[in-house]
Amino acid sequence: MDHSPFRVSARPGDHIADLSTPRPIIDEGRLAANIARAQAYFDEHGIAFRPHIKTHKIPALAQAQVEAGARGINCQKITEAEVFADAGFEDILITFNILGHEKIERLQALNQRIAELKVTADSAETVSGLAACFSAERPLRVMVECDTGAGRCGVQTPDAAAELAGLIAAQPGLRFAGLMTYPRPAAHEAVQAFFTKALARLKEAGLECPAVSSGGTPSLFEAHLAPVVTEHRAGTYIYNDRSMIRAGHCGQGDCAMHILATIVSRPTSDRAVIDAGSKALTSDLLGFSDHGMVVGYPEAVIAALSEEHGVIDLSACGAERPKIGQKVLIIPNHTCVVSNLFDEMVFHRDGVVTRVEPVAARGLVW
Amino acid sequence: MDHSPFRVSARPGDHIADLSTPRPIIDEGRLAANIARAQAYFDEHGIAFRPHIKTHKIPALAQAQVEAGARGINCQKITEAEVFADAGFEDILITFNILGHEKIERLQALNQRIAELKVTADSAETVSGLAACFSAERPLRVMVECDTGAGRCGVQTPDAAAELAGLIAAQPGLRFAGLMTYPRPAAHEAVQAFFTKALARLKEAGLECPAVSSGGTPSLFEAHLAPVVTEHRAGTYIYNDRSMIRAGHCGQGDCAMHILATIVSRPTSDRAVIDAGSKALTSDLLGFSDHGMVVGYPEAVIAALSEEHGVIDLSACGAERPKIGQKVLIIPNHTCVVSNLFDEMVFHRDGVVTRVEPVAARGLVW
Repeated sequence: MDHSPFRVSARPGDHIADLSTPRPIIDEGRLAANIARAQAYFDEHGIAFRPHIKTHKIPALAQAQVEAGARGINCQKITEAEVFADAGFEDILITFNILGHEKIERLQALNQRIAELKVTADSAETVSGLAACFSAERPLRVMVECDTGAGRCGVQTPDAAAELAGLIAAQPGLRFAGLMTYPRPAAHEAVQAFFTKALARLKEAGLECPAVSSGGTPSLFEAHLAPVVTEHRAGTYIYNDRSMIRAGHCGQGDCAMHILATIVSRPTSDRAVIDAGSKALTSDLLGFSDHGMVVGYPEAVIAALSEEHGVIDLSACGAERPKIGQKVLIIPNHTCVVSNLFDEMVFHRDGVVTRVEPVAARGLVW
Repeated sequence: MDHSPFRVSARPGDHIADLSTPRPIIDEGRLAANIARAQAYFDEHGIAFRPHIKTHKIPALAQAQVEAGARGINCQKITEAEVFADAGFEDILITFNILGHEKIERLQALNQRIAELKVTADSAETVSGLAACFSAERPLRVMVECDTGAGRCGVQTPDAAAELAGLIAAQPGLRFAGLMTYPRPAAHEAVQAFFTKALARLKEAGLECPAVSSGGTPSLFEAHLAPVVTEHRAGTYIYNDRSMIRAGHCGQGDCAMHILATIVSRPTSDRAVIDAGSKALTSDLLGFSDHGMVVGYPEAVIAALSEEHGVIDLSACGAERPKIGQKVLIIPNHTCVVSNLFDEMVFHRDGVVTRVEPVAARGLVW
């Protein structure tokens, strides 16, 4: 038995019921179905699909996504992109305003070694910082990030998008690579309207727009409702989670990630305590009032988390209640942040471990 | 320059203003003052102090706590205890119900190699699981966890505490090691009342109680208000955070941990976006409605986090607002969960890096 505290003591062939808890586990069948279903949708609608690796941070899964038909991958920071470049990925979009000497130095190195690197920018400051460090010999591709209503980053108007695109195109070391947005869910009309106007402005300015990229899992299967979009980015769809069930994207049977936890205390008839707290489930609520779904106990409420304990309110449950020592499966509110807490991920098929993958891009500094 | 994405590119002598962001940084002066202030309080009141290492997960910091006068350390899982045993710590309390074959096997190995290992139990199931695997030759010390009102784990009444203590004492392989609680803040009267009754029951049963252990940082400096308590456990006090300011435990000037972040976007005059999201700050709200305090901008509200972005609402701020590329310091809502996200921690004195410590017990599986 491997006693290293950093390693999962799980081997192919083990039963997940025998694994030490808490840990996330991934159902191979659901994983494969999620990859296939999304790619089939994008293929049907002729939309390029660029999976976001933030959800899994595992090169082998990105490889499966690309083999299914995805065109390139999406990362959120340079260090993630470095890990995936090391794993052989050649088409990477980093959807972030890259600022500062150290990050731009790393970006230069990365741009030298993969075929197709793109970043986003939403300000003249970001563009000028990049422009100062790239040259026509090996230019960097830059997309303009547009705020189509989500209220995060992005230029605020189609005019501003075209203006920033012009600034990018005027830099010898940069290439204008298209428009990008991270929209609110179900915001197709806003996305379509913003991008249509921005494309008209670009045309007036004589600028070619190589791509129009939108994103998000909640409305993934409605991407075609904004026909101006040529590319879609999404991460969560590969595992799915409770927030995606609520969004109508999937059902409980499409959730590939569960947190395996043990009931460690039953202090009262209405209270159970599990060994999964905020250091396993995270405290991402995403609008929910509790911390996940307990499979098989639909009335159970994960009412509170401390760091290594989760307190489950069983008061609405019937007579059949989990016992001390019993293992339960939890569908987390949000998968992407769970992946970020674990160095290794255990995969299984019908409860039998198939493989253990390092979460290669977990916990990276910038 | 070290390009490894897992390493902090920081060296002693660097200025924190030059560090790549986002990352937590620790102020050496405040750290030392927090350690000294708490220990002086416990020394004054003759209460044994057992720091909880969950907050920092760094053996060098536990060493400083013990050198200041702490008696042993508190861990929350076996794997953490293994890391600290490897670092030479000989007196470790794991405040958890340990269940299951793999964990108990590890616990046996740990009990063989350190002088003083204790765990907690709140049920006959936990006790019988432990009893089956330990023998009189090398017994395991077990404390009874009591629920004095926090509503997490613990037996519900003083009678139940004495009963479980009796069960522990009757096992050849176990030793009853005392009573333990993780109380609500400011619950001294409830703690005093519960433990006083439990001690009376233990006395009636002829059971000696070697220790009465309470815990928590929010009411740390009121530990003496429950004079029945012989030992206090606390973790957060070493770094402090926004929740401890609110609890009245400390002031802003006592917060040793800041998250260094960069303003990466200013989409509107009222909105700034930083490169610290839920994968740097975590989404622990702890009752707050936003995600941390921005030092120097008291009216700024970190209104929303996505994984790698934080959205700051500046609408209540005056004319002086942070600019793109500017670095800011954030006091997080909760330090302990931030530590768990980073492989290395940067320390500084007056803004100059003093050392970089591995967060040795971060992200351990059980």
